Amino acid sequence: MQRVSAAVETVDLGGYEHYMLKEIHEQPRALAETLGLEASHQVEDERFGAGAGAIFDQVKAVQIVACGTSYHAGLVARYWLEDLCGIPCDVEVASEFRYRARARREGTLLVTVSQSGETADTLAALRGQGEDEFIASLVIANVDHSSLVRESDLVFLTRAGAEIGVASTKAFTTQLVAFLMLAIALGRRHQLSEEATRELIDALHQLPDCVSRTLQLDADIKRLSEAFILKNHALFLGRGIQYPVALEGALKLKEISYIHAEAYPAGELKHGPLALVDAEMPVVAVAPGDELLEKLKSNLEEVRSRGGELFVFADDNAGMKGDSRVHVLGMPSCPAVIQPVVYTVALQLLAYHVAVQKGTDVDKPRNLAKSVTVE
Amino acid sequence: MQRVSAAVETVDLGGYEHYMLKEIHEQPRALAETLGLEASHQVEDERFGAGAGAIFDQVKAVQIVACGTSYHAGLVARYWLEDLCGIPCDVEVASEFRYRARARREGTLLVTVSQSGETADTLAALRGQGEDEFIASLVIANVDHSSLVRESDLVFLTRAGAEIGVASTKAFTTQLVAFLMLAIALGRRHQLSEEATRELIDALHQLPDCVSRTLQLDADIKRLSEAFILKNHALFLGRGIQYPVALEGALKLKEISYIHAEAYPAGELKHGPLALVDAEMPVVAVAPGDELLEKLKSNLEEVRSRGGELFVFADDNAGMKGDSRVHVLGMPSCPAVIQPVVYTVALQLLAYHVAVQKGTDVDKPRNLAKSVTVE
Repeated sequence: MQRVSAAVETVDLGGYEHYMLKEIHEQPRALAETLGLEASHQVEDERFGAGAGAIFDQVKAVQIVACGTSYHAGLVARYWLEDLCGIPCDVEVASEFRYRARARREGTLLVTVSQSGETADTLAALRGQGEDEFIASLVIANVDHSSLVRESDLVFLTRAGAEIGVASTKAFTTQLVAFLMLAIALGRRHQLSEEATRELIDALHQLPDCVSRTLQLDADIKRLSEAFILKNHALFLGRGIQYPVALEGALKLKEISYIHAEAYPAGELKHGPLALVDAEMPVVAVAPGDELLEKLKSNLEEVRSRGGELFVFADDNAGMKGDSRVHVLGMPSCPAVIQPVVYTVALQLLAYHVAVQKGTDVDKPRNLAKSVTVE
Repeated sequence: MQRVSAAVETVDLGGYEHYMLKEIHEQPRALAETLGLEASHQVEDERFGAGAGAIFDQVKAVQIVACGTSYHAGLVARYWLEDLCGIPCDVEVASEFRYRARARREGTLLVTVSQSGETADTLAALRGQGEDEFIASLVIANVDHSSLVRESDLVFLTRAGAEIGVASTKAFTTQLVAFLMLAIALGRRHQLSEEATRELIDALHQLPDCVSRTLQLDADIKRLSEAFILKNHALFLGRGIQYPVALEGALKLKEISYIHAEAYPAGELKHGPLALVDAEMPVVAVAPGDELLEKLKSNLEEVRSRGGELFVFADDNAGMKGDSRVHVLGMPSCPAVIQPVVYTVALQLLAYHVAVQKGTDVDKPRNLAKSVTVE
């Protein structure tokens, strides 16, 4: 197994105004390096460490434990593991997981996720696992020589390189790649057919290019971001695998622009948050297809008189039409399975441009540390 | 099985200014009636319908599906089922559950929750279950003669009586009682000992009185509420079984006062939302014990210079001390297992008083319907 150590890399701004922007733009390369599929065109069990194959043979379920952005990666992974592979998957915030008495689920692999490999609650969750509670532990981390890497049975190292910006970008998207590769490795032992596996790997190969094309939307997204500068609130909506993407988009905006952004599964809008929507609360929707958009439009009709505005990130090919209150940003067409990664990148750019225009300290937002190594 | 039909009751304001306040105050009676334990001092399987016993004998796991406030009831229930009974439990928003391909979990009981029994997404989830996906379905509903009641194998009718206020109060707390009774019924087939069962039932008997004592804090909570009237944001924090209580408290405030309140598991504070905290973002903590408070206080130290304020709902007997920035509301001492119900009532009063003083339409908040019977 090849391991890269982030600590030894030289890190400068490379002409970018902020580390965050640099790291957003490094994603095509970081994703390609994390994939590392060039030679074999398949996912080898060994990418997850020696003996991974024998462990994967026994996996009947997956429990993902993480904090913050890494938790959102786990939420995306759940859809891949359940939908594509038919493997039951639970995802829990580490500080919740570690403090409760948990019911045991047969044949479960514990997967922890942490950029630094040192996140205090996640490490405590790994250390606090019950005897025979899990068949083995796997960590997805970006930093080698870290506690989680040392103490886990299996390790997948993302190859994002050093991440300096406090708000995680390339670490998150490479975690998603790690999970999709895990889904492929586990899935072929379950319901994932050879053909489906091939399609997934093909999709993964398209990922760096899809992300590059998304980065070219920078000027359009910057223009869109101007609508948020004077706002104190935002609502992010997604459905299915795009709901965690909405969560991550809201978290980015929160962290660096101090706008109170909150994400909801789109179907929950009418169960409460719709009461909040007015001209001061823009609504962002991550809606690759158009099923969701029609429902959102009809929901928004009700708040039209109060000036509710909708910003939709949608597949350019879906032919979605905006109007005076509905602004559509056309996204590059790409395979559905990698859309969560691609749409995340657009939302990173949105948060970045809002924060820069608000004049916040983008790389070191107030009160936040890069690695949360205390509770 | 006794069934009460909410539709036939006469509903007037009974001297209260709003239905919501009336319904908050009806909770001791609604909870006692839902419990209905007087005669037998135990939980009979038949409360869940004919044949419940034979079905419960086969249950190895529970899948809860609901929307909005009812979803929060499910999140509380998860702690009871896993911690007390050792039964694996998953909870999912109905609009998410119904639209994804799910992995099957052996021996799972599907539990839907809906005050009206007509919630569109929840009903679609029940109808859309896969062949052999679940061993049976149970609905927890407040309205008899509803679609969910008709189409489920088992039924637990809460006896909250008609609920007119759009923001659910007594329907939610009686749903919690239903779940605790389900935990007892299922738990005795798993790891729940006779002694633990007796303690749970004793605790349930204390619930109406604990809620009555909480209602007597009305004037104190009204005083506390004044700090929120001019705010546009609030952060609600809880840990463990109190996290869903924080979610529900935030939703109530959102729905009727239009304050953008968001809930977080307390441990996630440092993973993002702490960046938002300043004098404009009061933090509400549901912290019966004092372990959480000490950590929160140290987190808040960091934002002291920006005027961050903390409002803590804590057990009166815990001897928690406030200071100029930390306001403590002493709650009645009660058994830990029923604290989620008791603390919910205090947060209902908080939301109510904020809304009344802001002059919103408390019983009919803008854009929201009592039962969401369309998507």
